[in-house]
Amino acid sequence: MSEPDIAALDANDPLGAIRDRFVLPEKLIYLDGNSLGPAPKAAFDDFKQVIEEEWAQGLIGSWNSAGWFESPKALGDRLGSLIGAAPGQSIVCDTTSINIFKAVNAALGLNKERRVIVSELDSFPTDLYMLHGLDVELRLLGRDGDNLANLIDNDVAVVLLSHVNYRTGALFDMASINNLAHQAGALIVWDLCHSAGILPIELDKTQTDFAVGCTYKYLNAGPGAPAFIYVAERHIRAARQPLSGWWGHARPFAFEPGFDAHPGIEKFLCGSQPIISMAGVESGLDALEGVSIEAVREKSLTLTDLFISLCEPLCQEYGLVLETPGDTQRGSQVSFTFEHGFAVIRAMCDRGVIGDFREPDLMRFGFAPLFLRYADVTRAVEILEDCLKEKVWKNPAYTTRPAVT
Amino acid sequence: MSEPDIAALDANDPLGAIRDRFVLPEKLIYLDGNSLGPAPKAAFDDFKQVIEEEWAQGLIGSWNSAGWFESPKALGDRLGSLIGAAPGQSIVCDTTSINIFKAVNAALGLNKERRVIVSELDSFPTDLYMLHGLDVELRLLGRDGDNLANLIDNDVAVVLLSHVNYRTGALFDMASINNLAHQAGALIVWDLCHSAGILPIELDKTQTDFAVGCTYKYLNAGPGAPAFIYVAERHIRAARQPLSGWWGHARPFAFEPGFDAHPGIEKFLCGSQPIISMAGVESGLDALEGVSIEAVREKSLTLTDLFISLCEPLCQEYGLVLETPGDTQRGSQVSFTFEHGFAVIRAMCDRGVIGDFREPDLMRFGFAPLFLRYADVTRAVEILEDCLKEKVWKNPAYTTRPAVT
Repeated sequence: MSEPDIAALDANDPLGAIRDRFVLPEKLIYLDGNSLGPAPKAAFDDFKQVIEEEWAQGLIGSWNSAGWFESPKALGDRLGSLIGAAPGQSIVCDTTSINIFKAVNAALGLNKERRVIVSELDSFPTDLYMLHGLDVELRLLGRDGDNLANLIDNDVAVVLLSHVNYRTGALFDMASINNLAHQAGALIVWDLCHSAGILPIELDKTQTDFAVGCTYKYLNAGPGAPAFIYVAERHIRAARQPLSGWWGHARPFAFEPGFDAHPGIEKFLCGSQPIISMAGVESGLDALEGVSIEAVREKSLTLTDLFISLCEPLCQEYGLVLETPGDTQRGSQVSFTFEHGFAVIRAMCDRGVIGDFREPDLMRFGFAPLFLRYADVTRAVEILEDCLKEKVWKNPAYTTRPAVT
Repeated sequence: MSEPDIAALDANDPLGAIRDRFVLPEKLIYLDGNSLGPAPKAAFDDFKQVIEEEWAQGLIGSWNSAGWFESPKALGDRLGSLIGAAPGQSIVCDTTSINIFKAVNAALGLNKERRVIVSELDSFPTDLYMLHGLDVELRLLGRDGDNLANLIDNDVAVVLLSHVNYRTGALFDMASINNLAHQAGALIVWDLCHSAGILPIELDKTQTDFAVGCTYKYLNAGPGAPAFIYVAERHIRAARQPLSGWWGHARPFAFEPGFDAHPGIEKFLCGSQPIISMAGVESGLDALEGVSIEAVREKSLTLTDLFISLCEPLCQEYGLVLETPGDTQRGSQVSFTFEHGFAVIRAMCDRGVIGDFREPDLMRFGFAPLFLRYADVTRAVEILEDCLKEKVWKNPAYTTRPAVT
């Protein structure tokens, strides 16, 4: 595509104006919104309100008057509307890891006769780590042509999968896998960390049992903002989760010595939530207000298609291997394995294009349609090409591994 | 004491100048710092820095460059110095409830042959709720003259106690109870929610095994700010906690499929921490910088002594019953049971004195020495007396229970 073609794409982008809702450092091309979303501009005032008014002036009274105590439920319902969940089934709280623990334990409790969990070797590792120490047998979908249908049989209690693979960006078909699981009598737990806010999700319609996810990627809620958990209405009453703290009690302020779980989705709460970080979830959802998730998906596919096609000649010339499905069976990231990927990502970063790197050799580029322009894509590819041409991996400054990338 | 006596106490208060470190609404007498501490003035800029610079400008790079990933450990060590813990044993993360779950499970794992937990009926309820569903026998210290020595025998795996009782303010003697537990071969888990930051604590010296606590009361870190957990160095290597998320992995960024617990206190981490709320922990600790905890304790006892003695005639006349030990075996709150306590607390609140109420009939007044003046105590008692004299419970506006108090 020519420069004018790209300019036309940007000029006609129905989401073009949404970029203005975000703070973006000047001249930076941020291809890491799949890891930490940028700050919505309005968040600055939202946080100020919570900190300087609600906390500093309202003090203890704000638990009621500012809606702090109700915020996990209120935000859960709002977030639910983005993932096809009717109200009363989603709640914002704790971390993705902890919510996986709750969901998997609850699902195991609902499927007591079985102790097999099917998951994927390529899951974000914490999903598997949270199963460590559970009295279960783990069956992992490998990377070489295994097939879920072969793994899910009548011994399987729970299928735990990432909707979008954090490494490759591959997208599972939720409806058909739910079907597969349910036909075998298994329950499904979806990790939506890399899909919530970036593509249409229909938890209720696809008969999903449980889902969890984070809010700091495509939902732009701020670093480490509270995660969410969804439990289908049909399971809530019977479900039991082991982190039975006071916020999950039917009467948290009666201060009874015995635990009596809340009858609603609130039973998936545990302790006091980090209210200031919670404010970011509201700001993040506000930044998505009035935006059609279908339009987000459409732009996401066009951005990633453009990136993939522009990178094709580089793959040929330099040996990058595309790891992301080339059709619509992907989320909103594009990944390549490349021997010198670490150095290339570091060098691109120095030139104002932020992607990320996952050991041992994976380059990931995330395309968040709320703030990225088509011109950003072409510019990012130019800089990638420069780095490859210059063989930046010859420069030792780009080859030292830091503790965190 | 006469008015000039009180004025002299304030004038000579070695902590008098610390009040200026906090935002306090005008004319408000805040006797609820034991529930939610006020905002340190410097916190406004601290939060702004994290939100507007580190997140909005630094984006993903701030996990390293702004020390986000290291903050639970760094803040844990800093907080540790307030509770008598040498570095490497305390970490700031998650919630008190979740940290109780980790500590109790780890302690049970270290004492595998035993399944009895001793706790107190009068614990903050979440401490007991978190034991719900564990395969243990619970022995509860009641309210009427039971005695821990009778409950702790050679069957006991874990003793879980609140250092300061959230209702009465009674303070356990940590050293002697640790001794009692250890002599019986039990491990101790202390809940420091109502003692951290308000009185000297010697976790290491008293041979404490585990401790947890929150940061939003006397540590002034903001609503729902992350909690902390302490594990004695001698237990860390062998201890195992069930919330084995990626932040607790020995190599969290190697993204290995198998879980290998961190050898250090980091194994008590689980998932991504709420970084913006975490910033409040640092601000709260900054507000205590250079303050001697012994001076805090001394003023706390003088404030509560003064309040108790001024309230004595009111107890006589109106039938309030003091629930707080009258000697130094208390934390920094004073509680009365009183039939009309709910209405009195509401009416006092309308007159600018914030205490709190716990069902069914408990009035609690917290005395945080960092910002309270002796004159606040005398003024609070005057207002309490007015409310009692006027029988505010005859006013229906003061008798309707809200959802949260």
